[in-house]
Amino acid sequence: MNILVIHGPNLNMLGVREPEIYGDMTLETLNAMLEREAKSRGVELDTYQSNSEGELISKIHHAPQVYDAIIINLGAYTHYSIALRDALKTITIPKVEVHLSNIHAREEFRHQSVTAASCIGQISGFGAASYILALIYLVELSN
Amino acid sequence: MNILVIHGPNLNMLGVREPEIYGDMTLETLNAMLEREAKSRGVELDTYQSNSEGELISKIHHAPQVYDAIIINLGAYTHYSIALRDALKTITIPKVEVHLSNIHAREEFRHQSVTAASCIGQISGFGAASYILALIYLVELSN
Amino acid sequence: MNILVIHGPNLNMLGVREPEIYGDMTLETLNAMLEREAKSRGVELDTYQSNSEGELISKIHHAPQVYDAIIINLGAYTHYSIALRDALKTITIPKVEVHLSNIHAREEFRHQSVTAASCIGQISGFGAASYILALIYLVELSN
Amino acid sequence: MNILVIHGPNLNMLGVREPEIYGDMTLETLNAMLEREAKSRGVELDTYQSNSEGELISKIHHAPQVYDAIIINLGAYTHYSIALRDALKTITIPKVEVHLSNIHAREEFRHQSVTAASCIGQISGFGAASYILALIYLVELSN
Amino acid sequence: MNILVIHGPNLNMLGVREPEIYGDMTLETLNAMLEREAKSRGVELDTYQSNSEGELISKIHHAPQVYDAIIINLGAYTHYSIALRDALKTITIPKVEVHLSNIHAREEFRHQSVTAASCIGQISGFGAASYILALIYLVELSN
Amino acid sequence: MNILVIHGPNLNMLGVREPEIYGDMTLETLNAMLEREAKSRGVELDTYQSNSEGELISKIHHAPQVYDAIIINLGAYTHYSIALRDALKTITIPKVEVHLSNIHAREEFRHQSVTAASCIGQISGFGAASYILALIYLVELSN
Amino acid sequence: MNILVIHGPNLNMLGVREPEIYGDMTLETLNAMLEREAKSRGVELDTYQSNSEGELISKIHHAPQVYDAIIINLGAYTHYSIALRDALKTITIPKVEVHLSNIHAREEFRHQSVTAASCIGQISGFGAASYILALIYLVELSN
Amino acid sequence: MNILVIHGPNLNMLGVREPEIYGDMTLETLNAMLEREAKSRGVELDTYQSNSEGELISKIHHAPQVYDAIIINLGAYTHYSIALRDALKTITIPKVEVHLSNIHAREEFRHQSVTAASCIGQISGFGAASYILALIYLVELSN
Amino acid sequence: MNILVIHGPNLNMLGVREPEIYGDMTLETLNAMLEREAKSRGVELDTYQSNSEGELISKIHHAPQVYDAIIINLGAYTHYSIALRDALKTITIPKVEVHLSNIHAREEFRHQSVTAASCIGQISGFGAASYILALIYLVELSN
Amino acid sequence: MNILVIHGPNLNMLGVREPEIYGDMTLETLNAMLEREAKSRGVELDTYQSNSEGELISKIHHAPQVYDAIIINLGAYTHYSIALRDALKTITIPKVEVHLSNIHAREEFRHQSVTAASCIGQISGFGAASYILALIYLVELSN
Amino acid sequence: MNILVIHGPNLNMLGVREPEIYGDMTLETLNAMLEREAKSRGVELDTYQSNSEGELISKIHHAPQVYDAIIINLGAYTHYSIALRDALKTITIPKVEVHLSNIHAREEFRHQSVTAASCIGQISGFGAASYILALIYLVELSN
Amino acid sequence: MNILVIHGPNLNMLGVREPEIYGDMTLETLNAMLEREAKSRGVELDTYQSNSEGELISKIHHAPQVYDAIIINLGAYTHYSIALRDALKTITIPKVEVHLSNIHAREEFRHQSVTAASCIGQISGFGAASYILALIYLVELSN
Repeated sequence: MNILVIHGPNLNMLGVREPEIYGDMTLETLNAMLEREAKSRGVELDTYQSNSEGELISKIHHAPQVYDAIIINLGAYTHYSIALRDALKTITIPKVEVHLSNIHAREEFRHQSVTAASCIGQISGFGAASYILALIYLVELSN
Repeated sequence: MNILVIHGPNLNMLGVREPEIYGDMTLETLNAMLEREAKSRGVELDTYQSNSEGELISKIHHAPQVYDAIIINLGAYTHYSIALRDALKTITIPKVEVHLSNIHAREEFRHQSVTAASCIGQISGFGAASYILALIYLVELSN
Repeated sequence: MNILVIHGPNLNMLGVREPEIYGDMTLETLNAMLEREAKSRGVELDTYQSNSEGELISKIHHAPQVYDAIIINLGAYTHYSIALRDALKTITIPKVEVHLSNIHAREEFRHQSVTAASCIGQISGFGAASYILALIYLVELSN
Repeated sequence: MNILVIHGPNLNMLGVREPEIYGDMTLETLNAMLEREAKSRGVELDTYQSNSEGELISKIHHAPQVYDAIIINLGAYTHYSIALRDALKTITIPKVEVHLSNIHAREEFRHQSVTAASCIGQISGFGAASYILALIYLVELSN
Repeated sequence: MNILVIHGPNLNMLGVREPEIYGDMTLETLNAMLEREAKSRGVELDTYQSNSEGELISKIHHAPQVYDAIIINLGAYTHYSIALRDALKTITIPKVEVHLSNIHAREEFRHQSVTAASCIGQISGFGAASYILALIYLVELSN
Repeated sequence: MNILVIHGPNLNMLGVREPEIYGDMTLETLNAMLEREAKSRGVELDTYQSNSEGELISKIHHAPQVYDAIIINLGAYTHYSIALRDALKTITIPKVEVHLSNIHAREEFRHQSVTAASCIGQISGFGAASYILALIYLVELSN
Repeated sequence: MNILVIHGPNLNMLGVREPEIYGDMTLETLNAMLEREAKSRGVELDTYQSNSEGELISKIHHAPQVYDAIIINLGAYTHYSIALRDALKTITIPKVEVHLSNIHAREEFRHQSVTAASCIGQISGFGAASYILALIYLVELSN
Repeated sequence: MNILVIHGPNLNMLGVREPEIYGDMTLETLNAMLEREAKSRGVELDTYQSNSEGELISKIHHAPQVYDAIIINLGAYTHYSIALRDALKTITIPKVEVHLSNIHAREEFRHQSVTAASCIGQISGFGAASYILALIYLVELSN
Repeated sequence: MNILVIHGPNLNMLGVREPEIYGDMTLETLNAMLEREAKSRGVELDTYQSNSEGELISKIHHAPQVYDAIIINLGAYTHYSIALRDALKTITIPKVEVHLSNIHAREEFRHQSVTAASCIGQISGFGAASYILALIYLVELSN
Repeated sequence: MNILVIHGPNLNMLGVREPEIYGDMTLETLNAMLEREAKSRGVELDTYQSNSEGELISKIHHAPQVYDAIIINLGAYTHYSIALRDALKTITIPKVEVHLSNIHAREEFRHQSVTAASCIGQISGFGAASYILALIYLVELSN
Repeated sequence: MNILVIHGPNLNMLGVREPEIYGDMTLETLNAMLEREAKSRGVELDTYQSNSEGELISKIHHAPQVYDAIIINLGAYTHYSIALRDALKTITIPKVEVHLSNIHAREEFRHQSVTAASCIGQISGFGAASYILALIYLVELSN
Repeated sequence: MNILVIHGPNLNMLGVREPEIYGDMTLETLNAMLEREAKSRGVELDTYQSNSEGELISKIHHAPQVYDAIIINLGAYTHYSIALRDALKTITIPKVEVHLSNIHAREEFRHQSVTAASCIGQISGFGAASYILALIYLVELSN
């Protein structure tokens, strides 16, 4: 089983960016941890980050050729990118939306997700554990 | 470690209620499965269901005397019960909001959660696995 | 044929409550009249009143074990209780929503019914006759 | 007693029009049935259909010269015709608004009735029986 | 100088219709009075009433062939008929919008006029005098 | 008969201010013309202008001691001053709201009048003639 | 193949009406041109214009008895006539909505079409060519 | 004179619940203090707390049999319970709404009270003193 | 202790102004009564009234030089004067907002207070007693 | 004559993406067909696809150097990209907006086009034929 | 060159008022500094402060008689005073709107400026430097 | 001191693009002028332009490695790019938002800036001088 983790805009700044909201773990550390978690469960896991809506769309389009499932954190695009909502609809492998922070406890405009409707579900608010829960779901609990 | 699972309105009808949305597993089966999952991780897990906003509020108030954490699915109250939002704020043990169906992919009025802001985070859309993921988070991933 | 009439919040105050809107017939008189009407049509009719959203939900859940149809006046819950909307969806026996007053001719916030969508239809504005029309529909006109 | 049944826009297409919503009974059959129902109750019943907002307004204006009550289904005009709302207010004989389908269970823009506030009440969702219930109310239950 | 007075929907019911709002003068009396007022000022004045949006539109289209100015009370169409707004824009003779009652002092939905923007101005709230003021403006004060 | 004309904010700039909207007549010329019109009809007419919401309120309060009626153009305060709406309600002599420009044909935020509801009616869009029509109404047509 | 072109309110004023928006071609010229275009493609084309919502509804109802397809420009009714939306739904022959001007580039209230959802599609902004494109689609490109 | 103090949802958690907003006085202490204040003014005062909307409704219904007035803090129900608004309308003894915190200075959704309109007035923001002021009003200042 | 009572727009008309809402007590009587109440509690109380937003702002600014607390009824400015909201924020002595009528039971636009958020709390609906309660709070219950 | 066809986000997935909405023709087939249609009319036609808002903006900027007109389908960006609206405004060659599906018949958020206002017009709902109609317009009907 | 700096409501409280937002510089110090800055650039600069909307309007009206340009900070009036928006439109000398704090980073209701549309532009968020930048623009950069 | 000027979408078209709004200076000329202005003040200034939201985000992320401050004009992204709002929040060097045109005087949807809240402040409406003012602020007035 091959899983792709997609990180959207500003997640490359993890550890630097508003640490009181996002914590001080860097993206490298997060990715390494996710790879270890995947390996320990016998699955392959690749990671990808882009700040570009267009590149994220293209990455999603091509994912099914290599991967069996996607874990995706679209950052701020979550709240307005209908193009990403549509991109996720173009592919049929399982997709899980994750968020580090609890989007329901932040500014009004972050309460809405236009992309979650194109995924199986959403996991929001557990920090790095949001990704791990998505991984566990895909590897052990879905079927 | 003691965990309380709280099921809100209409969840007693699981298996019977709109099975195309909620599946055909009954609440008894779900609870038994959750207890097994908990036991296998070395923790105690109790379950509680009520259709009454007031009883749910009272159950939340008393939970910290017996339990270390709460997994809570407030059903339709999620979308309008400010009283339950406040009740969750009155206690400080960890609380995780779960939903069987993906609330972001249903009617407009189900996209909003007024209660999630009082919890650590929200897990929505994974069926019974939403509860298991919450359990795994509380037992293995939080701290 | 067994029919259950469910009266929601504040309907126990009928005759006392804002008589310029709801008239001066008490709930007892209304119930007695409905029972006579039912009997005269050869059907059983029970009545139930509760001010509690949770009890109303539970009553709806259990109704199909005893009753063939429901006539329901949810009072103010009509306008915001998504939990009752969902409760009515959990059962498949015929349900008819009734209102004593014409909700379309009162305050803006009473024009909307979130529960009627879970019923066959709605009868609003005919005083006690709203209930009788629902009864006639269920006994004589449906099928 | 003389009753006028007014059918608004598109009701002449009954039986042809979106039968999954409105059924396959034609307007002729519906009218014949209503006349029989009226006769069996000892009252006169005429029917009228028009697609024109203006003609409907004029028909309402003249009704009290001949009729003692009106049963009216204004179709789509229900949702925006303030002119018909005002027309109904110009006369004081009893008026009952009916709908074949349950307007509360359809598109958002059909949930609102601007005309019901000018009538005694509204009966919505019972197919042809909506008209019969209105007839029964006017003949047997009002006063 | 030739002036056309156009009365929209329900104005034929003047004197009968909600006299607490519109007074007890009939349309015939109003028209006769307006004709006298016009004659006394040396101008011709014709009156026209229709309940039909389409007929009102057509009447407006043809008015410039016979008349030098229009006084128009579009009744409830004032609040939603973009078609009448457009019809008034198709002709360039002076047009004055009038209302018997003060539309700003009634229901919220009567505060807005979508047709006044196509006229020189609006006179609202002076009963029959609203028409006379429009007449005086057109005959004595414009230019 | 004594009439007070009240001009609100920015009307002292008439003739200078956006002449494409308000024309090039100055306030002095307008006032002189109104006084002549009044005199010719045998009534006294005083004029008053203030840019201050508070002074306008006070002027309205004291008006009934000296005047029999008010003609009032509240300029931009028309659209948001609930305090002036209330001030007009405190006195019971006849009040007529006037506007030089057609407020229904300008920016969206000028379509609404919060003050007209406290007056007999509103005359909008006839330039200086709006005031004269109000005068004619008060002197010749009201009663 | 028989095609009906339906022109809605105010289109009879083409050439006269706001020529800076709608151009100076009259409806007669437009119709003649459309008939020529149809003939040159070997199909029959009739034209119809009405300012009346009711007549337009009735014309739509009867169209399938004579015509194979409809090209329809509902003018201002496009933006609020749910009755015409429903009328178009009552028939199943192909329908194409057209507009002379680009409705997306005009006032906010013209951006929305409540009728286009009942048609195959919408062509807006190409002047007379909007109709020709609809004709070409129906004759040469559909199926 | 007999006064009933009704505390709504989550007020049993006073002293524990978000003390930075609600202070650290417990409900027991508050009740004891209120009883003393009442006694010192020569009136009887009972207290009641419930988290259940239904029980609060029923308590209100029965209050007039024992009490002469009600002081009521409906907590979060203040903002959405139309059922409680209606319940308060069913009885005619004096009712005063109180709040510990200043609801106008908190989240947007707490600014609105749907229940205050059924009471004489509202006292909000004075901590425990809100209740005492209500008591003083009822005992010393009303009539 | 020195207390300043500030009365906003139209309160000088008390006794005259809409007595069915505000009662028939004049401002002089109210002020005299408040001074007596203050004196009987051993505190100084001055009163001030202005219809001008600017004068009210200035009075608030200077109050702390002479007074220890403010009781303020901003009348209609309550609902839209952000400038007064800010003015109250510029000073730190205790401020209590009062209203004679129950603003929650009147027009929709009076339900909102933009100024209460700058005060300790709000007392609304008790007539002259609203002021006395504020006085009692400041003198006897705060601290 | 040289025409550029620009396909926006997710259109590279044509044939794969939600075929029940977009059909099973691939982008390659669509492009080849459009090139044939252009050639048969004696014009050059190039195609371009990008998922990136920024690349689409740049392509539009440079188009006038090579092309005489643009046919553009901006996919989901149609509904929110003000940057693309502005980009289209920066060039003055003819631009036609097209959509495969009828955007007026889909989710509410797809009814609005923020980009169509920068084009001559919009053609929506005719599948691949939407592009051909745009081509025919540009080659044969515009001028 | 003569420049007038106008300070609106509550700016006289600078240094005292919410120093965490507005800093601790007093208005006197700010004015002195602005005068120095102007002098050093060879221009005259006067300052004016008023809390009164009406006085601010009058000051703006008279400014062109003495001054060549205006720098204006309307404080809270920025967000709702259409009268000040109109006042600024009555004069044609250059006007620059300034704000000490960043209005886009504060409460939702401060994001909107109804007055900036009547000025050349707006400078917001740079503390006292906002005024200096406006001064530099007017003296050195405009033309 | 090193300053980076970032130009967002469509600014590469300056001089060509809607010159009645943006003037006829090209981006090259603007950049050269800004470099001269910087040099004359003894600071380094680089410029960057991109139409891509993603590239702009990345440029912002890397800026602090080379630059001490940012001047940024995000063009249309200003109004909806929450991703850019977040990107600006990830870095702590001073950021100033600028606009050539006065966004408060254009279409409603341009009045709102979602990005300004992440900057020190905003300068809008002064053409090229908006950039110079930002430069002057950063070099001479901040600290």
